[in-house]
Amino acid sequence: MITIEQAFKEIESHVNVLGNESVELSDAVGRILAERVVADVDSPPHRKSVMDGFAVRSSDIVPGCCLEVLETIIAGAVPGKSLTPGSCSRIMTGAPMPEGADAVVMIENAKLDGGSVSFQIDAVDASKHTLEKAASFGKGDKIFDVQHRIRPLDVGLLAEVGAHRVVVKRQASAAVLPTGNELVSADSLPGPGQIRNSNGPMLVALIRNAGLVVNDLGVARDDRDQLEKKVLQGLESDFLVLSGGVSAGTMDLVPEILQNNGVRQVFHKVRVKPGKPVWFGVKEKDNGKCFVFGLPGNPVSSLVGFELFVKAAIRKIHGQSIDSAMEFKANLTCEHKARGDRPTYWPAVWRESDTEVRDVTPLNWMGSSDLRALGSANALIFFPGEGTYAAGDRLTVHPIS
Amino acid sequence: MITIEQAFKEIESHVNVLGNESVELSDAVGRILAERVVADVDSPPHRKSVMDGFAVRSSDIVPGCCLEVLETIIAGAVPGKSLTPGSCSRIMTGAPMPEGADAVVMIENAKLDGGSVSFQIDAVDASKHTLEKAASFGKGDKIFDVQHRIRPLDVGLLAEVGAHRVVVKRQASAAVLPTGNELVSADSLPGPGQIRNSNGPMLVALIRNAGLVVNDLGVARDDRDQLEKKVLQGLESDFLVLSGGVSAGTMDLVPEILQNNGVRQVFHKVRVKPGKPVWFGVKEKDNGKCFVFGLPGNPVSSLVGFELFVKAAIRKIHGQSIDSAMEFKANLTCEHKARGDRPTYWPAVWRESDTEVRDVTPLNWMGSSDLRALGSANALIFFPGEGTYAAGDRLTVHPIS
Repeated sequence: MITIEQAFKEIESHVNVLGNESVELSDAVGRILAERVVADVDSPPHRKSVMDGFAVRSSDIVPGCCLEVLETIIAGAVPGKSLTPGSCSRIMTGAPMPEGADAVVMIENAKLDGGSVSFQIDAVDASKHTLEKAASFGKGDKIFDVQHRIRPLDVGLLAEVGAHRVVVKRQASAAVLPTGNELVSADSLPGPGQIRNSNGPMLVALIRNAGLVVNDLGVARDDRDQLEKKVLQGLESDFLVLSGGVSAGTMDLVPEILQNNGVRQVFHKVRVKPGKPVWFGVKEKDNGKCFVFGLPGNPVSSLVGFELFVKAAIRKIHGQSIDSAMEFKANLTCEHKARGDRPTYWPAVWRESDTEVRDVTPLNWMGSSDLRALGSANALIFFPGEGTYAAGDRLTVHPIS
Repeated sequence: MITIEQAFKEIESHVNVLGNESVELSDAVGRILAERVVADVDSPPHRKSVMDGFAVRSSDIVPGCCLEVLETIIAGAVPGKSLTPGSCSRIMTGAPMPEGADAVVMIENAKLDGGSVSFQIDAVDASKHTLEKAASFGKGDKIFDVQHRIRPLDVGLLAEVGAHRVVVKRQASAAVLPTGNELVSADSLPGPGQIRNSNGPMLVALIRNAGLVVNDLGVARDDRDQLEKKVLQGLESDFLVLSGGVSAGTMDLVPEILQNNGVRQVFHKVRVKPGKPVWFGVKEKDNGKCFVFGLPGNPVSSLVGFELFVKAAIRKIHGQSIDSAMEFKANLTCEHKARGDRPTYWPAVWRESDTEVRDVTPLNWMGSSDLRALGSANALIFFPGEGTYAAGDRLTVHPIS
């Protein structure tokens, strides 16, 4: 049995980073940049007005002045006339400033009368309501670095710099295979001794949410031939995520079938609760590798194994650091007794607090088969060891969604 | 010009909640429950073992005892034999406890010898390593309430309670229509006076990320007929989100075209920076309503208008509270001068801190046309008014993604 940290190290050293592909910007949200993005234009591309109003020579703006209006410059147009002393041009937000102009007077401060305009202000500073060419960025400036995960928000900036296609890490694929004779589907009523397959749909949803292509293999019964057939299908993906069949029972065929099919065990069992029986191995293929996780059959164990280890492997395969930056500290709201000799992840609710400190409350939880607590949870509290934790203790919180 | 709070009230009072539809569980992630989900089974469905080991009568476990093994009970099977004094059954994790058994001894503490077993422990407590029938939840218990947004995580619990279809709010649709003669697409090099269309792709990505079906109408030029045609197409969706064309310039045809086509203005201009010229109106249709947002053409103004007002309307149309629970407080890391008479949302980076308090740092930002700052930002700081804010001031942070 290895520690959580040792498991991370094994994942870090075994999982290799995928190659790159080019995708349309409209398909790029959630993907990880594999090449830096550099601006191919200046922003703004010209000195421009940031207000609707009049482009003026600031030296012309004196009390009682009245200026001739040469033209109207709209966004998307090019100024036709240079300003000479005593003249100005009407200008729209975003439009390029004409030659000779160095400031803009807002339309709210102007009074247009035929071909001339007077102002309700006595002076204007040079550069007022204008933005210099390339003030935001210049052609050649780095906009996003490699490993940046493209957010919906980023699509605007990427479009502005001409990144209509981006080079990203290839999207990993994962096959999902829950195993067990006792499993029936969600639309069946379980008979005596049976339970519904909750792990399969949950893992499919979690893996899809992590940005992978999912191959849902359905349930494998505790039958050697059928299990082997599905395992072989699953090994064609970048990941094969099994659940069930990795604890010490007689029907636990999974480790043997994996070994017979060239999957080399890296570790089996991690000092963590729930999730101890987690299994990790690697299959070498002609065209790459398949990373195999055997998660425990109990659904909360399966979730913890996914959150900790599968997600770390997903980060690594996409070229990111396996460390989760998501965890944070919060104050325990009530005393909690942690039992057993393994570090424990316990379903909990964290919340923003009116005071400066976030707090976290452990939920009533029956153990690794009790999914109900997770339905109310937005986090797992990490209790590093056995003992009594006091209200106010500051603990690590792992948010879940 | 109304306040941000008044704008929220107008949105709250005008946007109606959509009807319901039933979807497959596999399509339900991100959707909002419209009917509570109730368990149709007990969990666990039977008293069960939570360990691999031996189901015993706890009174039989005394130093040196040796018990006859009646059978092996696997998960998914039904026990065939009741325990009598001096007997036990081998049992797997998740399997139902046999009649007469009240505890489980872990396999690690047992030594099997032919048809009998001895133990390395001197006693076991009643109920040890077992879970009572319905300990997590009973048939008829409420599992999720209405308005719960289904998370990937929740799919496991929903599957367990037989919710293979769920009744959710109908998914809203939104048409996106950036306007402006100056706009060219991301794969074109802008000519003199032109800029790339960043708002359109950004709004499509943001709205899709908010869980809506998007109808991307492409760019409308400042041409009355073309703009009107696209507006009419857009009004067929639940939302029409325009950008550009709502400030005071001569080419700003949008408000007039909307009015001519039966869109009633609710508000125009909100006391917020950036984003002041935001426009909101309602179109009554035979089959419902279309809610129209005219966002400013500058991309950061557009983003702020989306984050504040469009997102509030999306929450309301899906039956949720329009209040964002996402905002939190953080400490300003450096002095910041807020200029102008409007409350300001300023691009910023917040981070977890080693101390107990999160902090937030304003980015160098050139104003509403400067998207580059947003590429580095993970939040907007809210400065409620003009003035100098000191390092250590505690401010509201609106996270963005």
